[in-house]
Amino acid sequence: MTPALDLKFAEELADIAGAIIRGYFRGNYDSETKAHVGDSPVTQADREAEAAMRARIEAAFPEDGIIGEEYGTVRADADRVWVLDPIDGTVSFIAGRPIFGTLVAQLRGGFPVLGVIDQPINRERWAGAIGGETRFMRAGGGDEDRPARTRRCPELKDAILATSGPNYFSRQEGEQFMALAAQVAHPRMVYGGDCYNYGLLTSGYIDLVVETGLKLHDYAALVPVVEGAGGMMCDWDGDPLTADSDGRVIALGDPARLEDVLAALRSAG
Amino acid sequence: MTPALDLKFAEELADIAGAIIRGYFRGNYDSETKAHVGDSPVTQADREAEAAMRARIEAAFPEDGIIGEEYGTVRADADRVWVLDPIDGTVSFIAGRPIFGTLVAQLRGGFPVLGVIDQPINRERWAGAIGGETRFMRAGGGDEDRPARTRRCPELKDAILATSGPNYFSRQEGEQFMALAAQVAHPRMVYGGDCYNYGLLTSGYIDLVVETGLKLHDYAALVPVVEGAGGMMCDWDGDPLTADSDGRVIALGDPARLEDVLAALRSAG
Repeated sequence: MTPALDLKFAEELADIAGAIIRGYFRGNYDSETKAHVGDSPVTQADREAEAAMRARIEAAFPEDGIIGEEYGTVRADADRVWVLDPIDGTVSFIAGRPIFGTLVAQLRGGFPVLGVIDQPINRERWAGAIGGETRFMRAGGGDEDRPARTRRCPELKDAILATSGPNYFSRQEGEQFMALAAQVAHPRMVYGGDCYNYGLLTSGYIDLVVETGLKLHDYAALVPVVEGAGGMMCDWDGDPLTADSDGRVIALGDPARLEDVLAALRSAG
Repeated sequence: MTPALDLKFAEELADIAGAIIRGYFRGNYDSETKAHVGDSPVTQADREAEAAMRARIEAAFPEDGIIGEEYGTVRADADRVWVLDPIDGTVSFIAGRPIFGTLVAQLRGGFPVLGVIDQPINRERWAGAIGGETRFMRAGGGDEDRPARTRRCPELKDAILATSGPNYFSRQEGEQFMALAAQVAHPRMVYGGDCYNYGLLTSGYIDLVVETGLKLHDYAALVPVVEGAGGMMCDWDGDPLTADSDGRVIALGDPARLEDVLAALRSAG
């Protein structure tokens, strides 16, 4: 299959997940059970969506590998490995905020080569593949379908800097992050948002996302999407993200700011 | 005018603001200028929306007072005073996240008696008045219009706790907040969101919002909305919010948890 066809298939997987996830969002379950992390609605949505995506992959490409947040790994050494995270941003889903996402990626040789970030409530989608141009779509491309581009950021002090929350950092990482944040003016900090922030970076509204503790299923899809829009992703040492990365992640809309960001993180390292 | 008619008028003000704000959100301005806090698009949207709301009030009720984030105060001692915040959650607006809001409130004798929280991109609205039942609407009530109710939260440890960001706290306030957060499990923290979190609390998806540094135009609209849905709002001492409050705000979906929250905040006070 060509990468373009593979990306089409990844989008089909996101469609399958989205239809299921919409059924569990907010008032679509009883108030007696609309409750708390780990409880039924989000877990159920997560599992049902991943099971449906896996079934579709098994039917279409039985030799492909699959790594999923909920149901683990099969055929990890296949030529093509699909990486699935049905609901990235669990707490946003539970809190009723339409800024979580479904993530679908494909790895080849341990490197993410294509990815989809899908917001099933607002029907927003970013889809990209290595060597191609990332696209932003609304309603699966029906309402809107256009190239997404990151924006330039000539000075770090003007960056919009996002991270999902201070609670994800170790004390040491928190100090490094704060050394970076100190170079960005206070009202430019964006908290919360998980994968959705990377989509917004792809479209040029956010300049910088810095996080830790991400798993392969959290970051694999982000890399081709961000890089196909002119941005870059790497770990906190500036190295490319692979299946073996340690989960410390930087996304830059403007790759020219990489050294500034690494220097700030090192200054408290 | 009856409170119900006043609330209808407050919704009309939110409609006026929303139409203007939608025109400035995301791709609706050039990438050369889609830039940073304090720069033109958000400031322009803010000012244009507030000016339009003020003009409508002046035309309909020339004796009413107005307090606005952008254009200050007129007739503060009038019987009825309208409080306007066209874009609460500036950084979310700039970052392209549809979780900011337009706030409209009415004060009588310094107390907020009605409020509207409006999300103009997703067309979601919470509207409430003292003595009435808060309603949640989609597309101005066209797509959905139903009572909103907060949910019970029998134990603090199970609460979903939201706050706009750690950068808003003083060191002392941050320690008090962390003492509270320590009683809530890590994945239950929601960061970012401004007024939108109070809307979600009103609908029973978030249990607790604790913030500081809020101005009258940030919190006046929230009080009638939250309380008309069965929740409560107060300052960090448990006192009612008035025009003279110090900007430290608690919103509870379940008023039965008030003492637990105050005790946690006091424990590091």
